[in-house]
Amino acid sequence: MKHNFGAGPGILPHEVLKQAAAAVVDFNGIGLSLLEISHRSPEFEAVLDEAVKLVKELLAVPEGYSVLFLQGGASTQFAMVPYNLLPSTGKAAYVESGVWANKALKEAKFFGEVDVIATSKEANFTYIPKDYTIPSDAAYLHLTSNNTIYGTQLHKFPASPIPVVCDMSSDIFSREINVADFGIIYAGAQKNMGPAGTTLVIVKDELLGKADRKIPAMLNYQVQIEGGSMYNTPPVFAIYVSMLTLNWVKSKGGIEALAKENKAKSHVLYEEIDRNPLFKAVCAVEDRSDMNVCFVMENPELEKSFLKLCDEKGIVGIKGHRSVGGFRASIYNALSITSIYVLIEAMQEFAEKNK
Amino acid sequence: MKHNFGAGPGILPHEVLKQAAAAVVDFNGIGLSLLEISHRSPEFEAVLDEAVKLVKELLAVPEGYSVLFLQGGASTQFAMVPYNLLPSTGKAAYVESGVWANKALKEAKFFGEVDVIATSKEANFTYIPKDYTIPSDAAYLHLTSNNTIYGTQLHKFPASPIPVVCDMSSDIFSREINVADFGIIYAGAQKNMGPAGTTLVIVKDELLGKADRKIPAMLNYQVQIEGGSMYNTPPVFAIYVSMLTLNWVKSKGGIEALAKENKAKSHVLYEEIDRNPLFKAVCAVEDRSDMNVCFVMENPELEKSFLKLCDEKGIVGIKGHRSVGGFRASIYNALSITSIYVLIEAMQEFAEKNK
Repeated sequence: MKHNFGAGPGILPHEVLKQAAAAVVDFNGIGLSLLEISHRSPEFEAVLDEAVKLVKELLAVPEGYSVLFLQGGASTQFAMVPYNLLPSTGKAAYVESGVWANKALKEAKFFGEVDVIATSKEANFTYIPKDYTIPSDAAYLHLTSNNTIYGTQLHKFPASPIPVVCDMSSDIFSREINVADFGIIYAGAQKNMGPAGTTLVIVKDELLGKADRKIPAMLNYQVQIEGGSMYNTPPVFAIYVSMLTLNWVKSKGGIEALAKENKAKSHVLYEEIDRNPLFKAVCAVEDRSDMNVCFVMENPELEKSFLKLCDEKGIVGIKGHRSVGGFRASIYNALSITSIYVLIEAMQEFAEKNK
Repeated sequence: MKHNFGAGPGILPHEVLKQAAAAVVDFNGIGLSLLEISHRSPEFEAVLDEAVKLVKELLAVPEGYSVLFLQGGASTQFAMVPYNLLPSTGKAAYVESGVWANKALKEAKFFGEVDVIATSKEANFTYIPKDYTIPSDAAYLHLTSNNTIYGTQLHKFPASPIPVVCDMSSDIFSREINVADFGIIYAGAQKNMGPAGTTLVIVKDELLGKADRKIPAMLNYQVQIEGGSMYNTPPVFAIYVSMLTLNWVKSKGGIEALAKENKAKSHVLYEEIDRNPLFKAVCAVEDRSDMNVCFVMENPELEKSFLKLCDEKGIVGIKGHRSVGGFRASIYNALSITSIYVLIEAMQEFAEKNK
């Protein structure tokens, strides 16, 4: 058995994978694969409707918001957000909390003025910037809720006088949020929601239609809303697997229950890191992520040998991002606490051997 | 057994579906699903490399072209092509041979001047416009090789003094083409190449870098080429199934062999339509598509009853597009000639009953 700590595309529930595999051969007993039916068939329309309904239910999305399943990943949203919201003579405020936030603000510069109101770049993004003033004349404030590479997470969203746009790619559906606090939420599916290939966007309708530029259809939120995520052929399979995964989230008791479990999972792992003399965490304690637990070794020469032990125990995907080094245990919704204990045991065994 | 004549997402080879389903549970015996491994893992990089290699091999792509697997469908290419190739003070020439061509040229208008050099709109796109002069001062000529909705196909590409950009979404890999005759070829996967969720783009490198505007990263062909289709997380599953399907094309003898089969398939079906007193084809004979065979009934009141007979025989997806009516038999690569004969028999049986 493998314990999949990969950062993404990440672990998905086993029962979801089994159902998805069955649908690839014969979808709901119709004698055709899910991959070879029209996206406008009643069968697929039911899938998309169900996926949208589950998002609304799980996140308690209020009236006045639209839920979209698009393509292109969060990186496409980096451009789509300013394309739709940033007037050419206006400005947008960005908090630079990591490399993805940096990519997002670079794209925004194509469309208007960008005000980087806070950054933790000087500390290699090991903490979440907190003390900043949000300019009330900016079109929006852009945040990143969780930084996969560094293992930091924004645990308390700032009160904002302007609409908040948030990239939640790596922690959506892992913790409770108040959708009404946001103007746009977007997330690539491939961490907690489904496979790579679709992007969830939750957008407050009243923010749209104010840009002073023509927007290509596929990048225009209003066109996508009018088309019900079907302006063109949507990524059928990725949406289907997302729907199954959201159903699984619901069956587990919803986000509240999973959030508790995620807290318990990260807690025991950080506890071991703090306790174990061979390992240490590098991020600011108050900003530690419940999704991506990053840690290094006091003696980096032992890294290879620890990775080898992990490999023997079926622990995969824990090598840290190349820009940070060390280890990263991504502990998404579908990863059970059993896998966390397997990792902790490996760390303890390794410490024992290397006393 | 179902005979899948759906227009798209369309029929895929049964052996491809079986392999894809297996990979969703356990990919190549690694103990993890294809959906939950990193796109930067050696396992997936091998898939993407193989997919690119197969495209190059099957289409004999010459040096100087790049092969990309992107997201967003052909509709995203409608904007991406002018974004990258049409200078703001320049113009582009478009042949309007159907509703998709129309959508493509509308997007281009956001970026520069559009010269619609020919159209068959006045005849509800029942023929391919042929007599036109290609302006040598345009940045490119845009064509659509096959019109899924009307059942017309461009059988002979015009000689062009300017780069030709062609939307081949519904007939790529179904017939031989000479890639060197094109500047850009693009195609949504969901007809002959794979499931919905990825878009093939073949681009002549020397055309790039000449636009006088800043291009968002995800829409910039040069960024996508430098990233090897992995500027961000690619649509892993859609690329994998495309790779399997291209391998299947190769195993069938490549495009030359499939093109012959496709000709044979469309030939017998058009023969029956022309012979059968109840049915008639509506498009110009010389422009009839080998992919989408559109036909109507002399007496439209019989349509429902014929659809019922088809349903009884397992013939699915042959209802015509709402803008055309009647029937549309999409006979993509993976549809066997056996299914064509089942349809022909149904037509003959129905004619017999309704003499």
